[in-house]
Amino acid sequence: MAKDLNFVSQIADIESDFPQWYTDVVLKTKLVDYGPVKGTMVIRPYGYAIWERIQREMDDRFKAAGVENAYFPLLIPMSFMTKEAEHVEGFAPEVAVVTHAGGEKLSEPLAVRPTSETIIGYMYAKWIESWRDLPLRYNQWCNVMRWEKTTRPFLRTSEFLWQEGHSVFASGEEADAEALRMLELYRDFAEKILCMPVLTGKKTDKEKFAGAISTYGMEAMMHDGKSLQSGTTHYMGQNFAKAFNIQFTDKDGALKHGYTMSYGASTRLIGALIMTHGDQRGLVLPPPVAPVQVVIVPVAMKKEGVLEACKALEERLKKAGIRALLDDSDNSPGWKFNEWEMKGVPVRIELGPRDIESGKMTVFRRDTLEKGDDYSLSEAERAIGELLQKIGENLFAKAEKRMQERIVEAETLDELLDGVNRGNFVRAGWCGERSCEDKVKEFAQATARVIDGKRKAKTCVCCGKKATHAVIFARAY
Amino acid sequence: MAKDLNFVSQIADIESDFPQWYTDVVLKTKLVDYGPVKGTMVIRPYGYAIWERIQREMDDRFKAAGVENAYFPLLIPMSFMTKEAEHVEGFAPEVAVVTHAGGEKLSEPLAVRPTSETIIGYMYAKWIESWRDLPLRYNQWCNVMRWEKTTRPFLRTSEFLWQEGHSVFASGEEADAEALRMLELYRDFAEKILCMPVLTGKKTDKEKFAGAISTYGMEAMMHDGKSLQSGTTHYMGQNFAKAFNIQFTDKDGALKHGYTMSYGASTRLIGALIMTHGDQRGLVLPPPVAPVQVVIVPVAMKKEGVLEACKALEERLKKAGIRALLDDSDNSPGWKFNEWEMKGVPVRIELGPRDIESGKMTVFRRDTLEKGDDYSLSEAERAIGELLQKIGENLFAKAEKRMQERIVEAETLDELLDGVNRGNFVRAGWCGERSCEDKVKEFAQATARVIDGKRKAKTCVCCGKKATHAVIFARAY
Repeated sequence: MAKDLNFVSQIADIESDFPQWYTDVVLKTKLVDYGPVKGTMVIRPYGYAIWERIQREMDDRFKAAGVENAYFPLLIPMSFMTKEAEHVEGFAPEVAVVTHAGGEKLSEPLAVRPTSETIIGYMYAKWIESWRDLPLRYNQWCNVMRWEKTTRPFLRTSEFLWQEGHSVFASGEEADAEALRMLELYRDFAEKILCMPVLTGKKTDKEKFAGAISTYGMEAMMHDGKSLQSGTTHYMGQNFAKAFNIQFTDKDGALKHGYTMSYGASTRLIGALIMTHGDQRGLVLPPPVAPVQVVIVPVAMKKEGVLEACKALEERLKKAGIRALLDDSDNSPGWKFNEWEMKGVPVRIELGPRDIESGKMTVFRRDTLEKGDDYSLSEAERAIGELLQKIGENLFAKAEKRMQERIVEAETLDELLDGVNRGNFVRAGWCGERSCEDKVKEFAQATARVIDGKRKAKTCVCCGKKATHAVIFARAY
Repeated sequence: MAKDLNFVSQIADIESDFPQWYTDVVLKTKLVDYGPVKGTMVIRPYGYAIWERIQREMDDRFKAAGVENAYFPLLIPMSFMTKEAEHVEGFAPEVAVVTHAGGEKLSEPLAVRPTSETIIGYMYAKWIESWRDLPLRYNQWCNVMRWEKTTRPFLRTSEFLWQEGHSVFASGEEADAEALRMLELYRDFAEKILCMPVLTGKKTDKEKFAGAISTYGMEAMMHDGKSLQSGTTHYMGQNFAKAFNIQFTDKDGALKHGYTMSYGASTRLIGALIMTHGDQRGLVLPPPVAPVQVVIVPVAMKKEGVLEACKALEERLKKAGIRALLDDSDNSPGWKFNEWEMKGVPVRIELGPRDIESGKMTVFRRDTLEKGDDYSLSEAERAIGELLQKIGENLFAKAEKRMQERIVEAETLDELLDGVNRGNFVRAGWCGERSCEDKVKEFAQATARVIDGKRKAKTCVCCGKKATHAVIFARAY
């Protein structure tokens, strides 16, 4: 063990300095690098390959749900941003502004989109005429920009990649139901593809999207017990429809405003999976998004037949749809073991002359750090396929168990503070008043992550009055 | 025929007013719409679905060639843009500039990327240390912005989507060879996926990329005989490596500058395929990129069993990997025929009670406008699969024949002018002097599209001196 740790000693201790561990891991595994402009990131191929898996899987789900992709312009007239009163308040301070183009000063400054409700609302108003055009459900994959003071790769950067879905319905019930349906889509995606347990629920008014009636969020517990908002869906009522004049002629012949909703998830999800599954050795990637699912490390590579056997195995696994990679570089096997462990590859196969002779292979699991030498080489496809499945299930179960164990109850502010200090999520009663929510934040540096719709609470953790909701409080990224 | 044309009379005549035909087609088929900011476009779902097919197919080819995807920031410090002398001259006039962000004036203005050579060069300089890091071959899919005075959807817009590949090699030979290899990748893609014949070759110095040693282009002939540049690859020598200090320690221990190259193709390709294959009825989409490959139109839809049979057929075709769509809307069959013809769907199946009874289906080919009623319903998957293949081949053959017939030779400026006036590409000799190229442009409004590496010419079409190259001249988009 001590020997292994020589190598990973480059990575800060995960328990005592989690922020530095995170920075070390994302940089050293070449997921990401800092861009030249403050607060920007470069997503390197190993990180981008994860994003491509996330995109593909999530996009398939959107399409199965009947959502279509489109693309709207990056630059939004500043006047659009101010049309919805809460929206401008929420986003104006973070906007990057284009004032000059083509060698001239623009007559109206243009916002680099921080989110696209306004420009999409403007186009929807052009396109929608009758109830036959509804519901209208489009999504776009794009970059957005929010000028942030404190940034960290994937978690908060001035530019990030995301998807934003925007839909219009004829009724508020349908639009709100869609916000909940998309929240479930996110949850299913997080659980199955990121192997990441999440809590979902409605946000308090304080935490909701600028311009929304209701915001629903998906929160995940990170290694340090803090919460990471990993996806949100919003029901806007007629706020944006009225601001942008999205109207339709209903079946009864009357002209009515539509009801809109939106939802978004971003490259933040990469940060979420790193901080959910990572360990002292570095990344632990869930098999569904791992760019490399299986690395094959030859042992005694120079011996006759070893490299050929490794190549043949790589080909067989690839044919079976497994993302396998043979590391035939000049580095020593030990160096390779450490490198690929740090990079979080779910399965390592070691193959040397003895294995080949006996028709076996040695298999190392990144999630449990267990090694087995009793795997039949001839049944590699089936065995590795099953193992990847098992690893995904185990990652989810482990994270789910940890999260459940670390959701504690509190009846007083002191208990709440104690709870979050110990790295827990704290379930507590809340009276519904903004002032109490503010006080919790001030006292415990914890925010209301989601309202727990399945639980009830007697009294407000802050004022002691009758509770209207049970809320999950936590410190958050 | 006259009846059919009632419907499409909304579309301008393709022969007498091709520019208006183009605008009508892209707007009425809902491929695209104008954005609120001048020169921007919104890519609507029907257009974006084509782009998704283009991306997927091209990306698979990049990955098979060993190129990896990454993502670099949108905003580039203005000082980067000025580091390579020719590059700044080429792009500075078109740049959109962010001067304010987060409520403050920025200390250095930031360019919205018009292309990413500079910022990628900066990062490569950080990452590359030794010859072991080379070649480094990354690509990104992103939006770029070039402030253009005259814009047209897909062909020239201030923001567009594209891919840009950027590679560094240890030698100039390798980098230049990669530029030619990527040109061949583009050609193969254009021919197989867009069913679009192209001419490829080196560009003249006048037409090359700002900062390149050599630019290679792929040109396609549009319906009106004008040329559309559909993809370019560039060999930069050490220009950018020196400007951004991209250095590596070679095997001999010496520190050397790398050699870079880049290549890009954009949403312009959608414009290219529209103007290559379209006809009086509207779009004619190549099967590999058609969002809907087969539309099923029920005849006598209300009759028992018709809709069920249509649904069953749709399912069967989908299972066979064919993008089939049943149009069960309330519109009349005739309306649907016209609508889907305008939208360019390669194959229409008409299915009514009589067809179902006799186990047949009526099949309409968009490319030839031929209708056959002798297709066996039970073998639909095979027959339609083969037909789609055949349609793609026919589209290519038709366009290839047209292009070859319309490449003419010229020995004098008058002949050249006459050639381009008749909507031809003109092959002519050129002495290599910029002044002669300029004169051709002035006299015939035609530019050198590519140097024809396979042909020789005796005398320059302009000055009559000895020709160094045979060049394809044309009017261009």
